[in-house]
Amino acid sequence: MHVLIIGGCGFVGSHVVDKCLAEGMAVRVLDPARPNSRIAHPEVDYVRGHLEDQARLPEFLSGIDAVVHLASTTIPSSSNLDPASDISGNLIPMIRLLEAMREHGPRKLVFLSSGGTIYGIPNMCPVPETHLPQPICSYGVVKAAMEHYLQMEQHLHGLQATILRPSNIYGPRQGRLGVQGVIGTYLHNLSLGLPIEVWGDGSVIRDFLYVQDFADICHQALMSSLTGCFNAGSGTGISIRDLIGRIQRTVGGPVHPIYRDGRGFDVPRVVLDISKVNAAFGWTPRVGLDEGLAGTWNWVSKCDAA
Amino acid sequence: MHVLIIGGCGFVGSHVVDKCLAEGMAVRVLDPARPNSRIAHPEVDYVRGHLEDQARLPEFLSGIDAVVHLASTTIPSSSNLDPASDISGNLIPMIRLLEAMREHGPRKLVFLSSGGTIYGIPNMCPVPETHLPQPICSYGVVKAAMEHYLQMEQHLHGLQATILRPSNIYGPRQGRLGVQGVIGTYLHNLSLGLPIEVWGDGSVIRDFLYVQDFADICHQALMSSLTGCFNAGSGTGISIRDLIGRIQRTVGGPVHPIYRDGRGFDVPRVVLDISKVNAAFGWTPRVGLDEGLAGTWNWVSKCDAA
Repeated sequence: MHVLIIGGCGFVGSHVVDKCLAEGMAVRVLDPARPNSRIAHPEVDYVRGHLEDQARLPEFLSGIDAVVHLASTTIPSSSNLDPASDISGNLIPMIRLLEAMREHGPRKLVFLSSGGTIYGIPNMCPVPETHLPQPICSYGVVKAAMEHYLQMEQHLHGLQATILRPSNIYGPRQGRLGVQGVIGTYLHNLSLGLPIEVWGDGSVIRDFLYVQDFADICHQALMSSLTGCFNAGSGTGISIRDLIGRIQRTVGGPVHPIYRDGRGFDVPRVVLDISKVNAAFGWTPRVGLDEGLAGTWNWVSKCDAA
Repeated sequence: MHVLIIGGCGFVGSHVVDKCLAEGMAVRVLDPARPNSRIAHPEVDYVRGHLEDQARLPEFLSGIDAVVHLASTTIPSSSNLDPASDISGNLIPMIRLLEAMREHGPRKLVFLSSGGTIYGIPNMCPVPETHLPQPICSYGVVKAAMEHYLQMEQHLHGLQATILRPSNIYGPRQGRLGVQGVIGTYLHNLSLGLPIEVWGDGSVIRDFLYVQDFADICHQALMSSLTGCFNAGSGTGISIRDLIGRIQRTVGGPVHPIYRDGRGFDVPRVVLDISKVNAAFGWTPRVGLDEGLAGTWNWVSKCDAA
């Protein structure tokens, strides 16, 4: 199977590339960035470009059987600063992609949505896929709209769309600039001797998923004819305060966070109900939080030392 | 109260203007069209312009206490031809409107969403507001995204947003070009001796709401501090075939429709559950279908004769 991985040079994308290669797939990556030399694979066809390059879509899709769309130009925490560019940078290019896929062949798409933002402040925890979307950040609004266009394309034009709604993904290769998640930022900062910050009092509850577990379900979704929306998380919540306790044990030293005012778009508590994805794919995360933190810390320590 | 009615020269908008004036409100209308001379009111401040004229938003909003947003650049049946322009013409301008409202004052907004498209093919009928949005036309996807941005604005910045999800609105002043609904098109065509067309076999079930009933709930929403989403329909379904029977009695002669192939984006059956709007506002439609058809036919006959 020839798969196009959009955003394949990113944190999550690079793990999905690894997984697809390990499973014998032929991989093309579309990404505006070059692959980091430490994670680049000679057998991957790396194409530098943006989904917004509408004229190049036939080239990107040529010879491709299935697409994994992981790219985003925005992140939850800053998406509210400019929702219009969130829309024009993500929603409209995906519509062009769907039109091009309709014309040029591939009928299978696995899409990275957002279990952490699409439900907004959930009315129940763990939150199932049947919960109404009520996002309170533009990132989540745009992800919901993208899901709707995918489902419309499936209904009208026979796309096979599998939508994954992950919780907070963490693990090796996650950046440290606070844009991709709290675990990456904390571990990098601790490794570099920098302070770590907590927005609010640390009572916020999150559901963390190790990136290789996400890559596994992404690959399973790609190989399956099952369509629809699936939460992909650990199914377990942990407060930021407890997370910091676990991190303290992982790094083997005391951690003294700086507490900042909470942010309006931060949801107090979100834990995903993963019974649907488990029933459909038999998938459940294999890497527990302590093991995942150790694996991430190991990578961070080497990376920051290099 | 000074109210800005966006789209106030349109079919629905002109009735909302009438109702607001009758209730003693001061009305400004923003519309790219001039008001039809037969419905124009000397006391209304008609401003010609588009919501896309971002630089003029302070002018449009000056002195305004509340906004009714009824405008759309697209219609359900053609929105799938160019979803990107649906998004850039409707979603992005509304985000600019919300930003301008945040800066220039009015904190109340009544929004015309779409009960007919937002639920897609509903899993139950009548369909309540708690049903997941699963639109199968771009018009419905964009309305859902607009609702999400409104609710986000309410959560983060204290907007009071009342979202109305009407069923198929019909009544006097509805156009005949097939873009605003089947009743207007049918009655105009019959009045002009033209054939009428049915997409599919006539078994499609719809919920029709008389435009003055919609104007009433729109005014109630404007005067209320209640927020959230509310279906606004008759609560009763009727097939297109039965509708044609009723129309036959209304116009007093036989009607022989031409049957065409069904369209993929037509939902087989949608009837709105109106218990929430009834409980919240005490609102229920006052004009039954036969009375509404008679009122519309009376107007159509005069209009087409003029």
